Amino acid sequence: MSVQPTHNLSVEELDKQSVFHPFTALAQHMETGPRIMVSGEGVTLKDRQGREYIDALAGLWCVNIGYGRTEIAEAVDRQIRQLPYYHSFASMGTEPAAYVADRLKRMLPGDMGRVFFGLSGSDANDTQVKLVWYYNNLRGRPNKKKIIARKRGYHGVTVAAGSLTGLPVLHNAFDLPVDRILHTATPHYYWNAEPGMSEEEFSRSCAEELDALIEREGPDTVAAFIAEPVMGAGGVIVPPKGYFEEVQKVLRKHDVLLIADEVICGFGRLGRMFGSQVFDIEPDMVTIAKGITSGYVPLSASVVSEPMWQVIMEGSKELGVFGHGYTYTAHPVSCAAAVANLDIIEAEKLDQRAAETGRYMQELLRETFEGEPMIAEVRGVGLIAAVELVPDPAVKKPFDPSLKVAGRIAAKALDHGLITRALPNGDSLAFSPPLVISRDEIAQCVERLARSIAEIRDELTRDGVGQA
Amino acid sequence: MSVQPTHNLSVEELDKQSVFHPFTALAQHMETGPRIMVSGEGVTLKDRQGREYIDALAGLWCVNIGYGRTEIAEAVDRQIRQLPYYHSFASMGTEPAAYVADRLKRMLPGDMGRVFFGLSGSDANDTQVKLVWYYNNLRGRPNKKKIIARKRGYHGVTVAAGSLTGLPVLHNAFDLPVDRILHTATPHYYWNAEPGMSEEEFSRSCAEELDALIEREGPDTVAAFIAEPVMGAGGVIVPPKGYFEEVQKVLRKHDVLLIADEVICGFGRLGRMFGSQVFDIEPDMVTIAKGITSGYVPLSASVVSEPMWQVIMEGSKELGVFGHGYTYTAHPVSCAAAVANLDIIEAEKLDQRAAETGRYMQELLRETFEGEPMIAEVRGVGLIAAVELVPDPAVKKPFDPSLKVAGRIAAKALDHGLITRALPNGDSLAFSPPLVISRDEIAQCVERLARSIAEIRDELTRDGVGQA
Repeated sequence: MSVQPTHNLSVEELDKQSVFHPFTALAQHMETGPRIMVSGEGVTLKDRQGREYIDALAGLWCVNIGYGRTEIAEAVDRQIRQLPYYHSFASMGTEPAAYVADRLKRMLPGDMGRVFFGLSGSDANDTQVKLVWYYNNLRGRPNKKKIIARKRGYHGVTVAAGSLTGLPVLHNAFDLPVDRILHTATPHYYWNAEPGMSEEEFSRSCAEELDALIEREGPDTVAAFIAEPVMGAGGVIVPPKGYFEEVQKVLRKHDVLLIADEVICGFGRLGRMFGSQVFDIEPDMVTIAKGITSGYVPLSASVVSEPMWQVIMEGSKELGVFGHGYTYTAHPVSCAAAVANLDIIEAEKLDQRAAETGRYMQELLRETFEGEPMIAEVRGVGLIAAVELVPDPAVKKPFDPSLKVAGRIAAKALDHGLITRALPNGDSLAFSPPLVISRDEIAQCVERLARSIAEIRDELTRDGVGQA
Repeated sequence: MSVQPTHNLSVEELDKQSVFHPFTALAQHMETGPRIMVSGEGVTLKDRQGREYIDALAGLWCVNIGYGRTEIAEAVDRQIRQLPYYHSFASMGTEPAAYVADRLKRMLPGDMGRVFFGLSGSDANDTQVKLVWYYNNLRGRPNKKKIIARKRGYHGVTVAAGSLTGLPVLHNAFDLPVDRILHTATPHYYWNAEPGMSEEEFSRSCAEELDALIEREGPDTVAAFIAEPVMGAGGVIVPPKGYFEEVQKVLRKHDVLLIADEVICGFGRLGRMFGSQVFDIEPDMVTIAKGITSGYVPLSASVVSEPMWQVIMEGSKELGVFGHGYTYTAHPVSCAAAVANLDIIEAEKLDQRAAETGRYMQELLRETFEGEPMIAEVRGVGLIAAVELVPDPAVKKPFDPSLKVAGRIAAKALDHGLITRALPNGDSLAFSPPLVISRDEIAQCVERLARSIAEIRDELTRDGVGQA
């Protein structure tokens, strides 16, 4: 009864006339209108026209447990009926927030101190920026404030978080990045390694570039380095061998904090609970979102190490109230959803399952695509992967962006009942399915992607693009 | 079953050891621990010790419909079971998002164009900053980027939104505000008007100060002005007569956009659906949060006028994809909660009800406190109010902040079963109850506050503070 349009326009028309769509070609949207999803079950979505799709991107890299899990609905319903909201300002609190924070502290690698809740990866990274500045002020190092991120890293879209993100589409026309945010090299072996370099040599060269940047800026001005274990939205870029080992040596040398952005990698995606565990990353701060609730209800967290917490907590004796927090920090409904979601992830060992089905997915993608025409690279680990195309793999050169190759493949895949995603740089198609996906469903995804790629490849060849 | 602690510590202890509390005196929290709320019904909350409180602050100015409304639980349950999440990137969408956006467009005053959804007032204001910059880049005015907010205004806590906020507790030690954000005078007649000035004269002087600031900075560099119709967390400051009329003249003269921050005032609090309607504000952009879902599930929105939308939409023909958006922008569960919440607000005419019970609350507060010892001012409109204390009303001078007068009164009120809030500047106690509060409950709130004030006043007098 309540979710009804209020006059005689279609939902599509209401949407076109009122919704400002994110990351959308807006003028084109006014022509084509929206594709409205109405239901989901497991890895499958259905739209208003009754068409079905396998969602190989788990929403936006977030629906780890898949759609339609009634356990979350039940936990949320219980919490809304009991206490739909209360805040955690001024020492107030709610039970679900304490349970989730306790659980995160025990799940996370390293010596984590306290969990600051938010709602999105963006606000959590924005909070990390503020925490880094606050912490170094308390430590009497007011000039040590710059934060280094990586080109093609994705860390969100607020003014500060969008500055950390290293993608032109988020910077152009938005006057980003702001001051104090710098970017270093993307550790993308395929594109950025010199010919003949081993992965280990390339990792060392990335670390050397970081070291040189810190030296150039002045180590006394550089506060933190932020990295996703595997870069997600920027291209699904798996770090080359030895990368984080080399990078962490540089950070320790210059007393630079390491922020692990686990928004996509966290909660099983890479085959371990956290990406940091896969690559021996020892973060001082961890950013969490997406998989913490599988997207059912918004929740994020900025986690700080115990040593950082001690400095911040002690500082409050002098500074007084810690002047940061969202109305919905530690929202009890979000936290109740998180508890139920973590129950599922742990009970069904979705991290181990992602390792197993992930191996199958990676193998099948490589078998299917490696060596095929216009395939530059298949990359990934666990249940995250990308297939990148170039006109001619023998000549490492990207397509003319105006051809929109990846975008056309993603659109074609939709016609074939597959949701993948064209990533914003180059021509890569991403897979990041719900961790509950079956081998059979993976095989269907790969087959549909192969069909879509073949069809666009035919179009391109017909138009004279690509290898002779 | 699922929301259970995982070892034998109390919830309070789990909280102390793991939750990083927002806006909390952290070291003190480690001594005293949290107060854990477990249930709510109407305007009443219950904590884990079974103590009951009337929540005269509606959570954090947000639970407009009160606690325990099962209609929201039902709408959320239905949506989670049907489709717990899908995004609105790349022209995707869901039904609830279209319904809420359509409804907001028709509810809001003025010629609103499109609704960009977020989760918090903070991210919505952060988005407004980015939209202002983007818009002026599209209009070929790359230097017109500064945004003017007001001292004591509250607009959130991200790096950008926290910069808009005009409170020292959010700036100190966080290196805020950042560049491009300026602050002009607080229109607080009691504290800031010259002796003998009428409200209208004071309003003109505030507008002149704004005009002078714009002239000093250069009108070609000033893009927008942001204001809450009634300042909320900064002190519940009602604009003096003629204030917005005078201010809007200045803004129009300099082609400066007006952003109305309706996060607290929106959805009935002032006795009309939006604060802008009470003060004849004609905004170019509107920021919405809190009351849109009454806090049951996080949702916010940045709304832009139709003329701004046209510029942004047309700009996408050249710029391509609009490079901003949150994973949880237009979250279907949040939007389903919003639809059910708006149904309640409209069906029960909570805006009109707030006007009626608000008149009673304002009168009772004035009757009870005006002219009493140490009472500086009772102010407010509709169902938002503040009572401010000073040592001696005959001498307009605040208390020594180290006495923490308002904080002590708020703590005492908790003992008496009343949740109010000590505001961050001066010594004011805020009321902003659920709009469903009854006259009888208002009377109880006022009586409990009076008792709490009397007790702290006695302590202060005993200690030799205040009028002779």
